[in-house]
Amino acid sequence: MQLFKSPVYLAGAALLIASNMTLADDDMENYRLRFEPLPHLPPLPAENSQTDEKVELGNMLFFEPRISASGVISCATCHNPALGWSDRIPRAVGHNGQIGERNTPTVLNSGFLNAQFWDGREPDLEGQALGPIEADVEMAMQLDHALERLAEFELYQDKFAEAYPNQEDPINAENLGKALAVFQRTLNTPNAPFDRYLQGDMDAISEQAKNGMVAFVDNGCIACHRGPNLTDSQFHAIQVPGSTDLGRYIVTGEEGDKYRFRTPTLRNVAVTYPYMNNGATQTLEEAVAIMGQEMLGREFDTTTIDEITAFLHTLTGEMPEFDVPALP
Amino acid sequence: MQLFKSPVYLAGAALLIASNMTLADDDMENYRLRFEPLPHLPPLPAENSQTDEKVELGNMLFFEPRISASGVISCATCHNPALGWSDRIPRAVGHNGQIGERNTPTVLNSGFLNAQFWDGREPDLEGQALGPIEADVEMAMQLDHALERLAEFELYQDKFAEAYPNQEDPINAENLGKALAVFQRTLNTPNAPFDRYLQGDMDAISEQAKNGMVAFVDNGCIACHRGPNLTDSQFHAIQVPGSTDLGRYIVTGEEGDKYRFRTPTLRNVAVTYPYMNNGATQTLEEAVAIMGQEMLGREFDTTTIDEITAFLHTLTGEMPEFDVPALP
Repeated sequence: MQLFKSPVYLAGAALLIASNMTLADDDMENYRLRFEPLPHLPPLPAENSQTDEKVELGNMLFFEPRISASGVISCATCHNPALGWSDRIPRAVGHNGQIGERNTPTVLNSGFLNAQFWDGREPDLEGQALGPIEADVEMAMQLDHALERLAEFELYQDKFAEAYPNQEDPINAENLGKALAVFQRTLNTPNAPFDRYLQGDMDAISEQAKNGMVAFVDNGCIACHRGPNLTDSQFHAIQVPGSTDLGRYIVTGEEGDKYRFRTPTLRNVAVTYPYMNNGATQTLEEAVAIMGQEMLGREFDTTTIDEITAFLHTLTGEMPEFDVPALP
Repeated sequence: MQLFKSPVYLAGAALLIASNMTLADDDMENYRLRFEPLPHLPPLPAENSQTDEKVELGNMLFFEPRISASGVISCATCHNPALGWSDRIPRAVGHNGQIGERNTPTVLNSGFLNAQFWDGREPDLEGQALGPIEADVEMAMQLDHALERLAEFELYQDKFAEAYPNQEDPINAENLGKALAVFQRTLNTPNAPFDRYLQGDMDAISEQAKNGMVAFVDNGCIACHRGPNLTDSQFHAIQVPGSTDLGRYIVTGEEGDKYRFRTPTLRNVAVTYPYMNNGATQTLEEAVAIMGQEMLGREFDTTTIDEITAFLHTLTGEMPEFDVPALP
């Protein structure tokens, strides 16, 4: 709840307190206080400082297709900046056109997650970043081979040396993961209409969306979709239509983890369709109805579905700046 | 030779005439006059006006992977702006990881070409643009299907209507090709060091590069690599190591066209490796030596190879501006 106390947020709250609120406003205030605006940066780990040199290197590596076996797949292929930093297809397509088991999560705001991948098999972006390079159905390149490939380019020798000064052989897996993690921590989407609403701009979202916020709280969606990134980073069992994926169980081997998946962020959910771990759900309305049934045991009426959907649309933030790098 | 008379070029020439040239300068002037700086725009066809609306639509379509069968391959996959608008692998990788027969040509300055593709099977970008969408080894999607896919998105309905006003059903193959062609005509790289040299900045390139320019002329490279884009857009027979590609013959069926390929541009050649129709040549030095042997019957010495290579490096221009679009 640290971010709840951010100066910007308090300024917004102060504005409100100063105004002459009706009882209805007071009621809404209680709902608003259940949410937190998205900060401009996620928590930064002490062991991987957020330097400009690492951002630049990570930006290059994110767009680098030659660390894939085919030479044409980069992180940006599936985490495509033109498509909400995801791919907008049900399940990821990787090496030789193979189709993976799961829907590609957006990397937007992924630094706010305490568990990476749908099954949480990595706790942080440093560990996450290396997985897709080696995965047979994604980039399909052994990490050693990827590092050898990078080391062939003088520009990468220079950029790794600048990002990791005073290291004898900086082109290694740890530094590769760190640079990609640092770059990904810049890919945040603050100032969504809902953030501006939380910060005191009462006209930033529609009445329908405000009703959706109320329904979101009253129906208990907020139990799991909470905090600035609207996820608890915890694992919950869900039976999504068409999915036989065992989820978290594959990581832990514990019976109770069968069909459990990490709660996905709802930030930018309107531009990161399709939905669910298998991407089988095309529309937000359908996704809201399914979550009501499966997670809350409720049949939402059309009005409620439309209101929650309107609320979810207010979570699309400002897209982050980045460079299309000039690769060597 | 129209562009030779551009005001900018004449201004450069006038500067020179005004200066107190030595005889050596006069000699160099004769070499310089064999070349033409790259204009900011290529010739624009009367039947496809260069409007902002078409540029915007074409930019979206260029980055649109959902007009491929897999949903992840766009024009920008092989014509990658991070890689000199090409792919820097020997032969293009497309649908399901299939490897094509030929090296991906850069789209940079492709509006200056009078024949598109290595075999010139299309005369202009309007025709070229549609080929890779349908090609089995590239995007592998029938054009009708691609158009249906685009028509599903309201944003494309709007953008096609804006680009082609007063048309009843503007989402059609002709307009798709036109928008992509218009966008590609913005992808030009003027103001390379060699252009600045041609325009009067005598220090814009090194003495070694100037010697390379002389060798390029004296050895006859300029016979085919001429004009502002350093290509005659004509077809010449070449036996490249490792290639059995019949080239232009596949288009015309004429015996004399066997192994003929369109002269590639030398603009940005330093950043569009590897070389030759099969991409089997990795370095510029090697490419220069092969061209000397195969096309000119000459064995260049190391000094000449290095000088011509230094000259070719001066042909890397300013990379064009473009947007990573927010796709629907």
